[in-house]
Amino acid sequence: MKKLKRSARLVEMTQYLLARPHTLISLTAFAERYQSAKSSISEDLAIIKEVFEEQGVGELHTLAGAAGGVRFTPKCRKDQALEQINAICRQLEEPDRLLPGGYLYMTDLIGEPGLMQEVGRMFASAFSDSRIDVIVTVETKGIPLAYATAQFLNLPVVVVRRDHKVTEGSAVSINYVSGSSKRIQTMSLARRALKEESRVLIIDDFMKAGGTIQGMVDLLREFRAEVAGVGVLVESGEVEYEERLLHDYVSLARLTEVDLRTRRITVQPGNYFQS
Amino acid sequence: MKKLKRSARLVEMTQYLLARPHTLISLTAFAERYQSAKSSISEDLAIIKEVFEEQGVGELHTLAGAAGGVRFTPKCRKDQALEQINAICRQLEEPDRLLPGGYLYMTDLIGEPGLMQEVGRMFASAFSDSRIDVIVTVETKGIPLAYATAQFLNLPVVVVRRDHKVTEGSAVSINYVSGSSKRIQTMSLARRALKEESRVLIIDDFMKAGGTIQGMVDLLREFRAEVAGVGVLVESGEVEYEERLLHDYVSLARLTEVDLRTRRITVQPGNYFQS
Repeated sequence: MKKLKRSARLVEMTQYLLARPHTLISLTAFAERYQSAKSSISEDLAIIKEVFEEQGVGELHTLAGAAGGVRFTPKCRKDQALEQINAICRQLEEPDRLLPGGYLYMTDLIGEPGLMQEVGRMFASAFSDSRIDVIVTVETKGIPLAYATAQFLNLPVVVVRRDHKVTEGSAVSINYVSGSSKRIQTMSLARRALKEESRVLIIDDFMKAGGTIQGMVDLLREFRAEVAGVGVLVESGEVEYEERLLHDYVSLARLTEVDLRTRRITVQPGNYFQS
Repeated sequence: MKKLKRSARLVEMTQYLLARPHTLISLTAFAERYQSAKSSISEDLAIIKEVFEEQGVGELHTLAGAAGGVRFTPKCRKDQALEQINAICRQLEEPDRLLPGGYLYMTDLIGEPGLMQEVGRMFASAFSDSRIDVIVTVETKGIPLAYATAQFLNLPVVVVRRDHKVTEGSAVSINYVSGSSKRIQTMSLARRALKEESRVLIIDDFMKAGGTIQGMVDLLREFRAEVAGVGVLVESGEVEYEERLLHDYVSLARLTEVDLRTRRITVQPGNYFQS
């Protein structure tokens, strides 16, 4: 790269760091990239750090020493996140979303990449200190959430399938009972999709009793994986505590009331905002 | 926002623009946000524009006049894109990927959000001048590609389902014949998922004869949608031109040879790189 003026270097470093979350970049690499002294690079990083932290973009951690460098950790500010989640809650409360059986239509919201980015940043923020190797979700609606989170955490995504596809090779399948419908269902994961003993973050769009997520936990056991965390966009608060199959999870929103007669839906911020 | 020094303002504007692709931001909004004169903002934008264009991040278009402003259009440089695609081609040629029936295992590559971002940027670059309202894909492996593209184009995503889900409300279903397996399959799309007469970009991971994409085209006709473009990550070159159901598409890679006996796979850059 040709030598840049400081102003241009700040722009370049900003876009370079944003594109490489959770990646250690050595000061030497930066100094060579920009043909600049490490002291100038350090000054630039201090400016970027201040702006990122003030704007709620994330944190910039500098590691000293020969093996040192800088690492960008995307974060959300709780106040900004709460504002975004409140906006999502208001949208979810629109009476038109109510479907037969008390289901809530949320496919349109899942279809907005910008919204998925916001939500992914929240999950990435919530799990930024956890040791995780891979993010696991089950098709279909959990996929955009899992990718948005994975992008901010710089991790790969593994998608559990509802059926066994020929394009996946040999697979492990399990049956599970969906807690809400009580129906027996199947999920499967290709043998080669997940290394043994991986540390896994499970991400999904909706959790009622937790049967689907418990199914994933059981399936992951076949891969001797360890579940390091569970994150759901919306949990249903209509389930009694004792009926819930899973108690340790992060939810961003909580469906507290669905009245089919009056078509009244109440959605509140989830347990992520209670800590 | 408190008044920032120029250096901090450049960092903030860079992250602000990167997070808002294909969005017109008025100079007045910037001037108010940073409590700075429009002339200073214009100078900053000129610096950002030069860095973005030189690094292949994208283009910054300034629209003059009272209703004017600036718009960031993510782009990839063809030389950088070709380098990335060549790396993907080499990975796809690993003999281990060959599955029974001549299928190619590519789920691991689809599982890398960073790679999906690169590919999404290429599609966004290829279709940046097309008038598009929404990106459509079919579950499951096309979803990450569709979202990565949609993020750079600032568009919503609609996912066609293989089955009809109760959580989607009333839906339109069609049967189609997958060109390669000759099996009759079903796909469906919720009535409320897509506005009538939308202009659609179809994105998918793999295309053989094009039966699945032709199925999407037929399904979209039920919504009176117009297909403004088709993008596939890998096309199979093992199909004769006359057998192909679809001729107008952008492919990023092309599977030219699969030899089951010698396990030799050959993958080359797609038609996107021939223009």
